[in-house]
Amino acid sequence: MNLLNEIANRFPEAISFAAGRPYEEFFDVEDVHRYLRRFCRYLRAERGYDERQVNRALMQYGRTKGVIHELVARNLAVDEGIHVDPEAVVVTVGAQEGMNLLLRALRADVRDVLLAVSPNYVGIRGAAQLVDMPVLPVDGGDRGVDLAHLATVVAAARAAGQRPRALYLVPDFANPSGLSIDRGHRLALLRAAAELDILLLEDNPYGLFHAGGERPPTLKALDRHQRVVYLGSFAKTGMPGARVGYLVADQVVRVEGRQVGLLADELSKIKSMLTVNTSPLAQAVVAGKLLTYDHSLVRANEREAVAYRRNLRRLLDGLAARFPGAGRHPAAVRWNAPTGGFFAVLTVPFTADDALLETCARDFGVLWTPMHHFYGDGDGGGRRQIRLSISLLTPEQIDRGLDRLATFIHDRSRT
Amino acid sequence: MNLLNEIANRFPEAISFAAGRPYEEFFDVEDVHRYLRRFCRYLRAERGYDERQVNRALMQYGRTKGVIHELVARNLAVDEGIHVDPEAVVVTVGAQEGMNLLLRALRADVRDVLLAVSPNYVGIRGAAQLVDMPVLPVDGGDRGVDLAHLATVVAAARAAGQRPRALYLVPDFANPSGLSIDRGHRLALLRAAAELDILLLEDNPYGLFHAGGERPPTLKALDRHQRVVYLGSFAKTGMPGARVGYLVADQVVRVEGRQVGLLADELSKIKSMLTVNTSPLAQAVVAGKLLTYDHSLVRANEREAVAYRRNLRRLLDGLAARFPGAGRHPAAVRWNAPTGGFFAVLTVPFTADDALLETCARDFGVLWTPMHHFYGDGDGGGRRQIRLSISLLTPEQIDRGLDRLATFIHDRSRT
Repeated sequence: MNLLNEIANRFPEAISFAAGRPYEEFFDVEDVHRYLRRFCRYLRAERGYDERQVNRALMQYGRTKGVIHELVARNLAVDEGIHVDPEAVVVTVGAQEGMNLLLRALRADVRDVLLAVSPNYVGIRGAAQLVDMPVLPVDGGDRGVDLAHLATVVAAARAAGQRPRALYLVPDFANPSGLSIDRGHRLALLRAAAELDILLLEDNPYGLFHAGGERPPTLKALDRHQRVVYLGSFAKTGMPGARVGYLVADQVVRVEGRQVGLLADELSKIKSMLTVNTSPLAQAVVAGKLLTYDHSLVRANEREAVAYRRNLRRLLDGLAARFPGAGRHPAAVRWNAPTGGFFAVLTVPFTADDALLETCARDFGVLWTPMHHFYGDGDGGGRRQIRLSISLLTPEQIDRGLDRLATFIHDRSRT
Repeated sequence: MNLLNEIANRFPEAISFAAGRPYEEFFDVEDVHRYLRRFCRYLRAERGYDERQVNRALMQYGRTKGVIHELVARNLAVDEGIHVDPEAVVVTVGAQEGMNLLLRALRADVRDVLLAVSPNYVGIRGAAQLVDMPVLPVDGGDRGVDLAHLATVVAAARAAGQRPRALYLVPDFANPSGLSIDRGHRLALLRAAAELDILLLEDNPYGLFHAGGERPPTLKALDRHQRVVYLGSFAKTGMPGARVGYLVADQVVRVEGRQVGLLADELSKIKSMLTVNTSPLAQAVVAGKLLTYDHSLVRANEREAVAYRRNLRRLLDGLAARFPGAGRHPAAVRWNAPTGGFFAVLTVPFTADDALLETCARDFGVLWTPMHHFYGDGDGGGRRQIRLSISLLTPEQIDRGLDRLATFIHDRSRT
């Protein structure tokens, strides 16, 4: 991704469908002060802390598993119908640290491998690379995960002496595909995970940003047998600058048949060697936001959800207006229609690589992300696809960006 | 260390010479607000930011190498006489993440090993464990590092097919030994590192807290040939709850003879896969403190430095008063006399292990850290030594704690 950032930096005037950062329009640094004060009031009123204890809670080193685990558990109950013991929560330096902790725990030796629905978020492959854990791609297919392919990949890996430990996926509005898995298929996936004896690593940064209609429960909400490790992020719903995320790891760990604790406690031991603890100050800001909105990030993000929904609609309508004959013949431009989140995928009748992105940025003033980055090296997937993100743009920028993109695609299709 | 925390939690009334956390007496959560506002004023006045840019700087994702690198570089110049390009600074989630980043970068394959002056901080062995990098102990000896032993260890490792990459050490008031290396020996160490072709990983969390007199320059200040990677921490001098530290890695990286950038940029790539970036909010708090005290942590910590100095003197005087015949015969109680920092080491005429610590906590109401934890597994070092920390105590607690400790030692020496 460094090369992509470099291209973006060289063309600051280009309209960027590449950036997946959350909407900035409502940022107000006074909120940071308000949230900190709200959390301090909570410590005094609900936890009975005196001033020395309040000072210490925010300013001293903190508990390795985090200091806002109870508020995180309440938020999961309120927004997601997930009911977990706060002791199963590990507060992390963003979801990215969570991935590292879990993969480090699962990678006992060279036989251990991770499965990941493909295409996938580059961060999971980065974490796997840091712990030297191979990643085996599993097709997403039409329904978000191809269960037949999953079984095939697991069987082949085992036959080759590997130990598939977990399947990573984003069931809601995935990055990069934008796709979601329906309720029936989630239940089927949970059954498949039990049969195959693998964990599911459910990453859910975008779930709150559905564009209307019913949203299926998370895998974790449907999980009755601790098959799911849930990866939460406050980067899109709390505050990116806090760098706070979390894991829910309520799996019981046994050593020689004896129950020794929760997976969360094993992850905590690793965290003590990786970052010691997540900044209590940063946690306090997120906690203050949770408290301000009665533990609901749905409520906290009402304005943002409207903006994302509006932007996604504007993108999809704008594509339809600019490519009226779309999808009519195999070589034509086409796109998927996510029902929420930040991303959509556009298929174009030519190879869309980094070199072409640079040309497009320079000559047409618009940025996007080549989809091949979201496939493993040498996979060959996504060569004629681009990811479009709407999270950081205004409707006017989307319109102008699509005008430029359409000009580029028409120009390129003629050559 | 988990077991030690458990013992401490079970005996909350015990006086703790075990905790190495910084002094809490001057904590005031209003400082957090003041420091945040100070950093925002700096962004407006010195960097010309408008309100949207200020909001974004604190609340959005930030630069992977950090957003306060220029202030860190200025602080190093003011307090340490270290002059580095801000681009060589990587702001990290505490020094612990810095250790992980550097060791991950140095560990290319199973042949790569780390050297560490023994006894050593448990965090460095934790980081090495996470990246599967063996740690070879090097004797500290009388002068803080035994250069003859260093050469022997390096030669033996190379003869065995290993690649020693770096030597980890704390040259100022080391954890756990409390010892410092004098200027002449620092220069000799730099020459030895060049001859042996290894890096030095200089960890400096306590350097500002000298108990008077001349303090030798850091290794990094003496480093003319980029032999030293410097590991900075704001946990003891800034605010532990911010979890902000940094690396200075100004080594030029070459691939096939071609200069491809600084080691800092390689570490940044690893960081993008580990934690993405260090919380800009947390960095802003540290930056505000630096700005408030004209970039000097010496100035910012005047009160704390007095408290630590007073406490260390109280400890050493208190030991002398309670063990007047100390050191007169081989089995006697004796201790070292650090000239600063948080720690001193006491040698006792019996084995001081975790079981005895528990007895001491329960029956005598005083906690300490068995020194054997700071040696590698099976090393056998430190069996009759304990670490005493003075950082979190009042003088009155030190007096009472020493009374209890003396009673315990006299009681135990008779059995």
